Amino acid sequence: MSAANPVLVEVLRGGIVESRHRGAYAVVDGDGRLAAAAGDIERPVFPRSSMKILQAVPLVESGAADRFACTAAELALACASHNGEEAHVATAAGLLARLGLGEGDLACGAHAPSHGPAAKALAARGEAPCRLHNNCSGKHAGFLTVARHLGAPVAGYEQRRHPVQQAVFEAVAGLAGQAADLPYGIDGCAAPNPALPLHGLALAMARIAAPAGLAPGRAAAVTRLRQAMAAHPFLVAGSGRACTRLMQAARPGTVVKVGAEGVFIAIAPDPGLGFALKIDDGGTRAAEVLIARLLDRFGLIRDDARATVADLLTTPLANWGGTPVGEIRIAPDWT
Amino acid sequence: MSAANPVLVEVLRGGIVESRHRGAYAVVDGDGRLAAAAGDIERPVFPRSSMKILQAVPLVESGAADRFACTAAELALACASHNGEEAHVATAAGLLARLGLGEGDLACGAHAPSHGPAAKALAARGEAPCRLHNNCSGKHAGFLTVARHLGAPVAGYEQRRHPVQQAVFEAVAGLAGQAADLPYGIDGCAAPNPALPLHGLALAMARIAAPAGLAPGRAAAVTRLRQAMAAHPFLVAGSGRACTRLMQAARPGTVVKVGAEGVFIAIAPDPGLGFALKIDDGGTRAAEVLIARLLDRFGLIRDDARATVADLLTTPLANWGGTPVGEIRIAPDWT
Repeated sequence: MSAANPVLVEVLRGGIVESRHRGAYAVVDGDGRLAAAAGDIERPVFPRSSMKILQAVPLVESGAADRFACTAAELALACASHNGEEAHVATAAGLLARLGLGEGDLACGAHAPSHGPAAKALAARGEAPCRLHNNCSGKHAGFLTVARHLGAPVAGYEQRRHPVQQAVFEAVAGLAGQAADLPYGIDGCAAPNPALPLHGLALAMARIAAPAGLAPGRAAAVTRLRQAMAAHPFLVAGSGRACTRLMQAARPGTVVKVGAEGVFIAIAPDPGLGFALKIDDGGTRAAEVLIARLLDRFGLIRDDARATVADLLTTPLANWGGTPVGEIRIAPDWT
Repeated sequence: MSAANPVLVEVLRGGIVESRHRGAYAVVDGDGRLAAAAGDIERPVFPRSSMKILQAVPLVESGAADRFACTAAELALACASHNGEEAHVATAAGLLARLGLGEGDLACGAHAPSHGPAAKALAARGEAPCRLHNNCSGKHAGFLTVARHLGAPVAGYEQRRHPVQQAVFEAVAGLAGQAADLPYGIDGCAAPNPALPLHGLALAMARIAAPAGLAPGRAAAVTRLRQAMAAHPFLVAGSGRACTRLMQAARPGTVVKVGAEGVFIAIAPDPGLGFALKIDDGGTRAAEVLIARLLDRFGLIRDDARATVADLLTTPLANWGGTPVGEIRIAPDWT
């Protein structure tokens, strides 16, 4: 049994540490050199939705995005875990319509919009949530675009051995410096999600941040995806979400993306770094504080925007009556 | 820095461990002897709502419950973190009315009913959640009963130096074998919540399970509270909740109670044991599996009811489409 990862984030109540979140992180440059790290970064983790930009590489690299005239908004949504707000749903629906497909072709299952007001508005109209509201609907619309372009069957596009996922796994393994037969689990949206060492996940993001060493077609593809995300922070997540807010507060071009179970990645073209972190227990509240602190440590939070993300750098906790009772903060020995 | 607590619960996806929950537990008898333990059980934890039965001791011991003719249902609700369903709200409102008080006298703040359908029904009627829906409204009604009985001011009953909380802290410290000036934080409901070693929390529960060594008045009070909870598992939590379901599946007389941030206690009069556990990171999903496994290990889950709590002993995980993708299970080395 390996040593425990360090405590990176603490939850305080009345000045006493109530809960502790352990984890690991890696910050690397495009050549794979570590700029910062803590914990076991070679243990495989599921990147979950943090890797959507990697899963979208075949969409651009194959020519599918050009053939179906994908907009930057549609590419951003392909890399998003969106709130199911109107703009998200409309963007996914628009791409599907151009493919001659519909909501029923999505394999991602339905769930209520993640954004409370959007969910309430839907319920107030007497409508049931559909697959377009699934936070992954943009990614799945992207998969379907690739399937159409390859002339592959639409049904089963989410299966590991389908040509779409074969292309996805090749791109992921190549960018992360891993063998192509990566182990995988099934994600919440039914797509296969490979397990990667955190170090490899950070490396893939660093290669997007600093793509000079990549083949020209791949370099162009990842740059187009990164720029699409950076240009559309709202589409990548939505109202009130940490990804959206951190991208809006970061240096231009920076991408921030959450994954379920306590994962975050960031892509910083200036100064060419890739970030990946995983909270051992899957706690998103801790992952948000850790990614905000890591971005800040590398000078990526703009001074003029720092106040807008103060609650992510240290999260105040209040009781039901609104009285402050504690905070979620970075642990003293996190570096 | 003390050694890390052991991994007690794992989250699996596709046969690979995705997330890990560390923690500690103590199972003790009425004399404080350990029957089982793991991790650091001397480090202070906030018991949060798991200790409501301890906070209710003055309600019975002082004579307040008799004077105001509290029913077993009202005593159970005083020890509850309830769902805000109709029976919960009506029981709290009934006690307040007998005190000549109302919802506005509760210091606990308002939140929507924890039970989704109850929250939806309230919204459908166009009503806003009030303090009676707060999961702690029964506890606060109990505090107010003590204040009335003591002739103390009603306003400020949730303040640490108010006679009600003085009585609470004396009872808690006495049962847990701690000094009366326990450090504390402010709970979600505005009441002070003392920090206790897990060992002490388990000891307090063991003394309720096996009260022979207590002063007669205290023994009678804790037995009446335990029996009230055991007789009303629905009032202690509500529809679908782990506390309710585990009590319904356990040997008669057993009490199970959750606390926020990954805490559970159990009180088992047969065979006279007290249980306390804390998941380091505050993860309730892990705490539920651990308490179910601990109860089962000590023979407290009835054979005829085991199937009704199978999803607590090992929790299956499915994706949005309903396909199984993994599980939350007890870790191999948890004992």
